[in-house]
Amino acid sequence: MKIRMVNSGVFTPIDDIQATLTAPEQGFYWIDADAEDLNILQPLFSLHDLAVEDCLSEEEQRPKIEIYEDHYFIVINSIRFDDEEIFLRSLSVFLGRNYIITVTNQKINELRTLKPILWEQEVSEPDRFLYLLIDLVVDNYFSVGDRIEAKIEKLEEDILMHTKKSHLIEIIGLRSEILWLKKVLGPQKEVINILNKKDLRLIDDQLQKYFSDIYENAVKIAETFETYRDLMGNLREAYQSSIANRANEIMRVFTAITTIFIPLTLITGIYGMNFTNMPELDMKYGYFMIIGIMATLGFGMFLIFRKKDWI
Amino acid sequence: MKIRMVNSGVFTPIDDIQATLTAPEQGFYWIDADAEDLNILQPLFSLHDLAVEDCLSEEEQRPKIEIYEDHYFIVINSIRFDDEEIFLRSLSVFLGRNYIITVTNQKINELRTLKPILWEQEVSEPDRFLYLLIDLVVDNYFSVGDRIEAKIEKLEEDILMHTKKSHLIEIIGLRSEILWLKKVLGPQKEVINILNKKDLRLIDDQLQKYFSDIYENAVKIAETFETYRDLMGNLREAYQSSIANRANEIMRVFTAITTIFIPLTLITGIYGMNFTNMPELDMKYGYFMIIGIMATLGFGMFLIFRKKDWI
Amino acid sequence: MKIRMVNSGVFTPIDDIQATLTAPEQGFYWIDADAEDLNILQPLFSLHDLAVEDCLSEEEQRPKIEIYEDHYFIVINSIRFDDEEIFLRSLSVFLGRNYIITVTNQKINELRTLKPILWEQEVSEPDRFLYLLIDLVVDNYFSVGDRIEAKIEKLEEDILMHTKKSHLIEIIGLRSEILWLKKVLGPQKEVINILNKKDLRLIDDQLQKYFSDIYENAVKIAETFETYRDLMGNLREAYQSSIANRANEIMRVFTAITTIFIPLTLITGIYGMNFTNMPELDMKYGYFMIIGIMATLGFGMFLIFRKKDWI
Amino acid sequence: MKIRMVNSGVFTPIDDIQATLTAPEQGFYWIDADAEDLNILQPLFSLHDLAVEDCLSEEEQRPKIEIYEDHYFIVINSIRFDDEEIFLRSLSVFLGRNYIITVTNQKINELRTLKPILWEQEVSEPDRFLYLLIDLVVDNYFSVGDRIEAKIEKLEEDILMHTKKSHLIEIIGLRSEILWLKKVLGPQKEVINILNKKDLRLIDDQLQKYFSDIYENAVKIAETFETYRDLMGNLREAYQSSIANRANEIMRVFTAITTIFIPLTLITGIYGMNFTNMPELDMKYGYFMIIGIMATLGFGMFLIFRKKDWI
Amino acid sequence: MKIRMVNSGVFTPIDDIQATLTAPEQGFYWIDADAEDLNILQPLFSLHDLAVEDCLSEEEQRPKIEIYEDHYFIVINSIRFDDEEIFLRSLSVFLGRNYIITVTNQKINELRTLKPILWEQEVSEPDRFLYLLIDLVVDNYFSVGDRIEAKIEKLEEDILMHTKKSHLIEIIGLRSEILWLKKVLGPQKEVINILNKKDLRLIDDQLQKYFSDIYENAVKIAETFETYRDLMGNLREAYQSSIANRANEIMRVFTAITTIFIPLTLITGIYGMNFTNMPELDMKYGYFMIIGIMATLGFGMFLIFRKKDWI
Repeated sequence: MKIRMVNSGVFTPIDDIQATLTAPEQGFYWIDADAEDLNILQPLFSLHDLAVEDCLSEEEQRPKIEIYEDHYFIVINSIRFDDEEIFLRSLSVFLGRNYIITVTNQKINELRTLKPILWEQEVSEPDRFLYLLIDLVVDNYFSVGDRIEAKIEKLEEDILMHTKKSHLIEIIGLRSEILWLKKVLGPQKEVINILNKKDLRLIDDQLQKYFSDIYENAVKIAETFETYRDLMGNLREAYQSSIANRANEIMRVFTAITTIFIPLTLITGIYGMNFTNMPELDMKYGYFMIIGIMATLGFGMFLIFRKKDWI
Repeated sequence: MKIRMVNSGVFTPIDDIQATLTAPEQGFYWIDADAEDLNILQPLFSLHDLAVEDCLSEEEQRPKIEIYEDHYFIVINSIRFDDEEIFLRSLSVFLGRNYIITVTNQKINELRTLKPILWEQEVSEPDRFLYLLIDLVVDNYFSVGDRIEAKIEKLEEDILMHTKKSHLIEIIGLRSEILWLKKVLGPQKEVINILNKKDLRLIDDQLQKYFSDIYENAVKIAETFETYRDLMGNLREAYQSSIANRANEIMRVFTAITTIFIPLTLITGIYGMNFTNMPELDMKYGYFMIIGIMATLGFGMFLIFRKKDWI
Repeated sequence: MKIRMVNSGVFTPIDDIQATLTAPEQGFYWIDADAEDLNILQPLFSLHDLAVEDCLSEEEQRPKIEIYEDHYFIVINSIRFDDEEIFLRSLSVFLGRNYIITVTNQKINELRTLKPILWEQEVSEPDRFLYLLIDLVVDNYFSVGDRIEAKIEKLEEDILMHTKKSHLIEIIGLRSEILWLKKVLGPQKEVINILNKKDLRLIDDQLQKYFSDIYENAVKIAETFETYRDLMGNLREAYQSSIANRANEIMRVFTAITTIFIPLTLITGIYGMNFTNMPELDMKYGYFMIIGIMATLGFGMFLIFRKKDWI
Repeated sequence: MKIRMVNSGVFTPIDDIQATLTAPEQGFYWIDADAEDLNILQPLFSLHDLAVEDCLSEEEQRPKIEIYEDHYFIVINSIRFDDEEIFLRSLSVFLGRNYIITVTNQKINELRTLKPILWEQEVSEPDRFLYLLIDLVVDNYFSVGDRIEAKIEKLEEDILMHTKKSHLIEIIGLRSEILWLKKVLGPQKEVINILNKKDLRLIDDQLQKYFSDIYENAVKIAETFETYRDLMGNLREAYQSSIANRANEIMRVFTAITTIFIPLTLITGIYGMNFTNMPELDMKYGYFMIIGIMATLGFGMFLIFRKKDWI
Repeated sequence: MKIRMVNSGVFTPIDDIQATLTAPEQGFYWIDADAEDLNILQPLFSLHDLAVEDCLSEEEQRPKIEIYEDHYFIVINSIRFDDEEIFLRSLSVFLGRNYIITVTNQKINELRTLKPILWEQEVSEPDRFLYLLIDLVVDNYFSVGDRIEAKIEKLEEDILMHTKKSHLIEIIGLRSEILWLKKVLGPQKEVINILNKKDLRLIDDQLQKYFSDIYENAVKIAETFETYRDLMGNLREAYQSSIANRANEIMRVFTAITTIFIPLTLITGIYGMNFTNMPELDMKYGYFMIIGIMATLGFGMFLIFRKKDWI
């Protein structure tokens, strides 16, 4: 647990916080806690029982916002693209009049990125901290979206060039990734919309219009993901068509082989007939001539088909 | 029939209701009735004949709203997802100045859920009761929508992985479920729109904007269901393509077998010809050599095709 | 021809109408005429020549509105779904300051439905009559739309379950029905838009917003029909895919038969070869053994294919 | 070259025009010229050099509007559907304060249609003339659109009923016609938008809202053509599916023939084997019995396939 | 490096610029520099370090705008279609109160086109210069869009007429070109939106509405490119269908050949049977008759198939 008195040099020991909570005019506390620290923090900031319970729970938390008497409890999902895989981290935030508590069980990149910004921009209200944090979180969705788009395009090109059966697995994998992100983004968007629209006491009116920018971005991301879903449909179609065409190619080769051999078989059939009077049969080199004719015919058909680009 | 004096401890026997109807400043009556109770209630609240008739009728009621002199009659459809099946329940509501009568023939979850909320939120007007009720009803559509979406996604994945003929039945079933819900939702949306837009005497102006929130939700649900319809079209397409591709696979195997055997047949045809001078025929082990050659050739073709991943 | 003094008990003989036309404060005339009656009515109401000519013409009239000095001439198309067929009826209306003349050559349901409403709602202006009439007309398009949607859904299900060639005829029929309705609705929408938007002297400003409701409905219907067109495209696709898949099934059976017989033919080819030294040929029961082997092999292949669900 | 003093009986010889140009309060000149007349007109009206050059050029002019000091130069494309072909005519217009010069090299229907309207509506300003002219031009696009839609629908029905290879040529032809019109309409729309939006000195403010009506129509047409493009995509799809299905039908017949003959060939193979002990071979009518059996078998298979509707 | 005192005849040597920078009432400096010139210019105009660094970097710059104390740094991408290939050039601009510095490493057409316009339109503010420049840049995207559209249409027609395998390469190439442009346009649009929306000190309020026109155009282009993406999907589909149909055609020919030969093979099979009593075998010209019959039959089938347009 790290406690920082943002925008004020003074460091306050954890036990004195309560005293200063009532009137820190020159800044606010940012407490970067993990779930277990809440046991200490709850009595100090009188955090709501249900919210603390949520943080302590092992389960994945869905994005939500709870409005309590003198603080808000916000859960949002941070996203990270690592090693071609997408990771989701729940980030819980308690926002009070002059403190903000971020609760995470795993390191979250956005918090690290946020630190220098806080000092540089001379942030002095917790609601502005919240805005910057959520902005960073939402921005990350864009870059994840870009990565997914790149993956889709790569896959589409691969499918068109050399379809493989394994592409189906990739399509299904990518598709469920997109659906999963779409599902995550839904409630997140709702949380941001509440910050944007509702008349919230702890969030400055001036600031609210910035949240509306974030909301617009969230909507844009959701639309993009909707588009990806359609693109996946196209991909599925391209794959199935490619597979069908490839199957057709093979069939064509098979059929071509049959088509070359059937006339030759007819010739052998002819000289296998038992007519009494078949002059060719008694010619000395009849057999060899016929073999020669058959070879010529077969090879000729092969050449014609090849020239016509049929096989 | 259960009568409750909401937000006031006083219990009024059914026969005294009429007396108190004129001036219960501190709350309103909620009467949770079934259709038969209406015979008693109709004279007390002078409910409109046509509305009562509708409630008593055996037929499924479509969502609607009727505006009478001093009360409204509203029918909405509650939805429930149980055991992978969707159930629809008609819920009729009589809304008066200081009473609300809910008429149901089957238990409706939303009413049960509503009870604690009424007390907790200190609801003291019947129109607010109506708002909370319809809000719950509409919210349930969302969760039904989620379940349907999950079903669609599961089915799509199944189809892409291992298409079975039975999937067609599932597609048709799911598709008609969606169409049915779309049809149910249409008039429901209209009812909510009237509550939202029209200038209704019995509904507080302040409250009306809340109805507009519900209406937005209803519109969102309707759009979602429209999307599901499109998704079902994609599913149908994916199924048909998959079936076609699978048929192609089998055809390919068949054709491959034919293609392997045809050249062998040609060889037998050759040695079945009746030429006088065919030296091989008189070789001692000619027959066995040819059998060997044929076996080698056939097996060789099989190996080549397999290696090329053609069969 | 029926003349009614709407909202006033007084009946006026046709010849006296002109006298009262100038100042009937307490109501308006509704004259339910057929085309021939116009010969009598034209001089009385000084109806415009071109309008009367249109009514008398045998040809189908397209919806339109003509603004004349002291009356409007409106043609709209009423629609009726009867015995699974759609019928279109032209309905011509002359709207004056205190009269409305409806000209029809066939009975039109909407007029019959309108009568009780007129009395019930105490309609006392001709423009309100017009509003109610057009509202009824447009409402009927909704129910026709519903029927068409039901037809489409039924057809889609039929096609997916058991595709028949006759379905193509049904698709084409339904499709041209939809295109025809779309074409009818276009100018109708324009007429309503003029009633809604333009500043018309004979139509009360208050009433105009009601026309805007009708216009919204007309737009909604037009959009629905646009959707139906898309649905028909899907249907065509589903049909063609189904037909293709069914053809594939049959091909598969054919190919399977060939595939079973080709190896057997090879065996007969082998024993048809003329090698001198083929020990099997001289075995006493060689022939019967080979026939047995062939039968076993053929039947075995059949069983394997069946078990793999290939035929 | 025809000069008309619109809305004023006075005819002015071409040489006196300049004199009256400064103050013709009661009307305006309409000069219906061809390109060569411009040599005479240019000095009189001091038309801009570049504009006159454009008119004289042999090349097809793209729709555009040029704003000069005291006159505007407008080029629009008139469209005509004649003998199932679409013709495009450039129409150049010089609009001055009290004159309008229309320059055409071929007869343009819209000008002919316009003449009676000018007199009937007592048009007395050149900008209103321009409005009426462009309105007529744009209206013609609608009817061309209708014709194209009719062509598309006819073609779609033809394709679904009896696909022919020639349909592909028709699709491609229709498709490029639509693309060509779309390209023509683009800059035309821009010209109208400028007349509609920009603050133009020579066009009355009152009139500008009428141009906005035309612009709306132009937008509607452009959207319609966008739709046609999609419809052509569907048509292409329908054609390709139909062709594929028809090919499948033929393949099926071929395969059916093969399937009927293969078992018969097996029988001949059996009796062509050289086993010593094959009792049937020595039966007197063995040969004829086998021929009979083969005929029966072949015909039987044919009947079965036919009955199953497989061929 | 060329320095111009736009809209003022005075030429200022580079070293005196700083002196005049404070008060050049009658114009502004346009300095057309390349990256290396920045070493001289940076101290004179106190350009921001990071911006200069960006210009000097070898890497391709993404479009962006940076707002510094007394100047803005803007990067946009100019596009050029040359020899059927699309080239992208980064163009960096420093905008100050009375100077504009354009930094390019390659010649950019837009700057050349801009020169005469500057003098003609008597541009006297640097922000207006910026507007004209960006307008030209964005306009070029339209013409690139047109070229791409033409390419798509040409390719579509080619594919429909004579599908070749090489078309797939063209589709993939065109597709990635479109995706690449879409990606370039995205941040460009954002830059223009900032110029359009944000309250920027160095850009005149009057001018801002012109930037809004450019933004509209940029949005239109982005939408067009979105459409192209869809069109590429259609193209892919058309290609795959065409390839499939072409494969079907070939298969049909193959199958037709087989179908013609199989019955002939049956005949040879019949006369290859070893029945003792087969009268035809001993007829003198039996063999030749059978050969004749087979030839007739084969040729007859060929004619029938050809007449039915099956091969």
